[in-house]
Amino acid sequence: MYNFEFKNPVKIIFGKDTISKVVTEIPKNAKILMTYGGGSIKQNGVYDQVKNALSEVELFEFGGIEANPHYETCMKAVEIVKSEKIDFLLSVGGGSVLDATKFIAAAALYTNGDPWDILAKNKPVKDALPIGAVLTLPATGSEMNGNSVITRVSTTEKMAFGSPKVMPQFSILDPQCVYTLPDKQIANGVVDAFVHVMEQYLTFPVNSPIQDRFAESILTTLIEEGPKVLANKKEYEAAANFMWSATVALNGLIGVGVPQDWVTHMIGHELTAFHGIDHARTLAIVLPGVMNIKRENKKDKILQYGERIWGINSGTDDEKIDAAIAKTVEFFESVGLPTKLPAYNVGEETIAKIVARFEKRPYKLGEKADIDFRQVEQILKDRL
Amino acid sequence: MYNFEFKNPVKIIFGKDTISKVVTEIPKNAKILMTYGGGSIKQNGVYDQVKNALSEVELFEFGGIEANPHYETCMKAVEIVKSEKIDFLLSVGGGSVLDATKFIAAAALYTNGDPWDILAKNKPVKDALPIGAVLTLPATGSEMNGNSVITRVSTTEKMAFGSPKVMPQFSILDPQCVYTLPDKQIANGVVDAFVHVMEQYLTFPVNSPIQDRFAESILTTLIEEGPKVLANKKEYEAAANFMWSATVALNGLIGVGVPQDWVTHMIGHELTAFHGIDHARTLAIVLPGVMNIKRENKKDKILQYGERIWGINSGTDDEKIDAAIAKTVEFFESVGLPTKLPAYNVGEETIAKIVARFEKRPYKLGEKADIDFRQVEQILKDRL
Repeated sequence: MYNFEFKNPVKIIFGKDTISKVVTEIPKNAKILMTYGGGSIKQNGVYDQVKNALSEVELFEFGGIEANPHYETCMKAVEIVKSEKIDFLLSVGGGSVLDATKFIAAAALYTNGDPWDILAKNKPVKDALPIGAVLTLPATGSEMNGNSVITRVSTTEKMAFGSPKVMPQFSILDPQCVYTLPDKQIANGVVDAFVHVMEQYLTFPVNSPIQDRFAESILTTLIEEGPKVLANKKEYEAAANFMWSATVALNGLIGVGVPQDWVTHMIGHELTAFHGIDHARTLAIVLPGVMNIKRENKKDKILQYGERIWGINSGTDDEKIDAAIAKTVEFFESVGLPTKLPAYNVGEETIAKIVARFEKRPYKLGEKADIDFRQVEQILKDRL
Repeated sequence: MYNFEFKNPVKIIFGKDTISKVVTEIPKNAKILMTYGGGSIKQNGVYDQVKNALSEVELFEFGGIEANPHYETCMKAVEIVKSEKIDFLLSVGGGSVLDATKFIAAAALYTNGDPWDILAKNKPVKDALPIGAVLTLPATGSEMNGNSVITRVSTTEKMAFGSPKVMPQFSILDPQCVYTLPDKQIANGVVDAFVHVMEQYLTFPVNSPIQDRFAESILTTLIEEGPKVLANKKEYEAAANFMWSATVALNGLIGVGVPQDWVTHMIGHELTAFHGIDHARTLAIVLPGVMNIKRENKKDKILQYGERIWGINSGTDDEKIDAAIAKTVEFFESVGLPTKLPAYNVGEETIAKIVARFEKRPYKLGEKADIDFRQVEQILKDRL
């Protein structure tokens, strides 16, 4: 394996009826801004649980953060942070609310010009407001990392940044939040977590048996538990196992000392930027194309994945790879995510626009940095 | 799975030629006390690497920390910490040096009476000096947790304590340190890490597939990589995989939300206290006895372990359990650790002394807290 550094100081508070613990985790005498999304937390009781726990605290609210959170929305929150002299951000919601909160935390203390540069120019985050999280939706893993993805509506750009400064101080994960999620969000969460693992796993071998087996542990568990949650979302144990899988899928541990890909995400972000397709659905579309077009680069790991996850152990290498792709597609479709572009009414025209964007970028993608705009085109055409 | 909390802020710096990074990790202008053991770091070059990296730093030294580190030795270091106004401890060595350093860190700032009470009376550690570690021996996992085990020579007592306050700020793991280890220490390290996993895994099922599979990942990797390291200790990749396995075996992650046992350690500590048997060797002796005597309590997990780790899937349950125990014994013996008491010249007399000790203690042991001194006797007699 490669040399690596790893540090993840996020405190996880996991389990049934844990949301009220938020009061013991926030700093004393802090002015808190509670951030949330479209209001589902008001229907499922989480809003009330948080408000009740924090009844003695000076609490401001900023609701209305959308899926694929907007830069423009975040900047409105930054104004409140500054005008109200907020000193702690409490994210109550899923990965989008948390990603937005991370950007708000960094932008509020950014003194080096336009905060958009954090996203567009990879400007370093030297300081950020402290963050806590109450997670209501297992999917992104944002609750235990320093990553964030933000969309700028005015330019239809979806950009990522990462910094240890925006890792939550704590994240509270009550699997009962799954009970009231729409099926679509559960299915998206399962696939999102699955592809997070694949981005760190399906590259080329560097003799990293612990990382590989941990990754395979999460994939197998998502394949087992995801359908159980969809069949009965009030089955606590399945919800808990799904929720913990999504967290460990992207808390850094399975990615230490190994090559990482992330081209599926990079291409997927463009599909969301142009068409507003749910993030996880873009991953379900793109990943099979990446596996097919990069089958030589990824040969050893696709074969390992096929054998250890799906029991594929007969045929030629190409047949085994085809079978591994087919099983992956079948799994995504079985939980309700179509994997071809036409199912989302996306065609050649969008592919051309996305390819044009990648053509302008100075870097190549993938674990071998060998994917240029031409291969992006091949990958997307594979999904027509 | 059970509710849980998890926080592990230790920064891991892992890989080839990483020891010189120590200079960027220690606090500026700190007075450092470097702690180490019997001098092997002077033979393998680690001492020189650390000294060279810290040539500009005010560095004091405290060597001579023994395996199963002594309370009496630690208290000598505490005197130096106080007289020299040390404000950072740098452990350079294996788990024993690090465990000692943790106790020194806590004892130096303990103001509530005799520091022995931290061990003997479970007194809380409210503050401790910050610690950094350069790890030279994969085994105990102490580099990424807040646990420590200390022996008091005057009373032949071996006691443990744990506190987040004594988690290292950073731990540097260069697998090249394995190149010069004696075979015996490598074999001990493999078995130590293996049994750490088993203490957290071989209990009863609580529907925790991620934790179970992560645990199985580590066991399988130790079984594969351990013999490779013993066959050629200069094979970097095997050394690295062994080293990372030992760390993740006891950094808390596989133990979240699941019952834990630790009776093998509790009994093993007594064998070390009375006879000075290497810690890992005591575990190799005791674990098969625990598996045999607690075969009903642990039935489901022993069967799962047998099938997933050793491919045991035919016979009656009792036959499968016998086979799983036999495979475990065979593995320990194959790396050179005898698993029966007579091989260490220990007989009935010692068993009687150990049983008498447990008889005086007010608590029962094991994941179901149902192991009393009588069962301790059965377990030890099983190993005659």
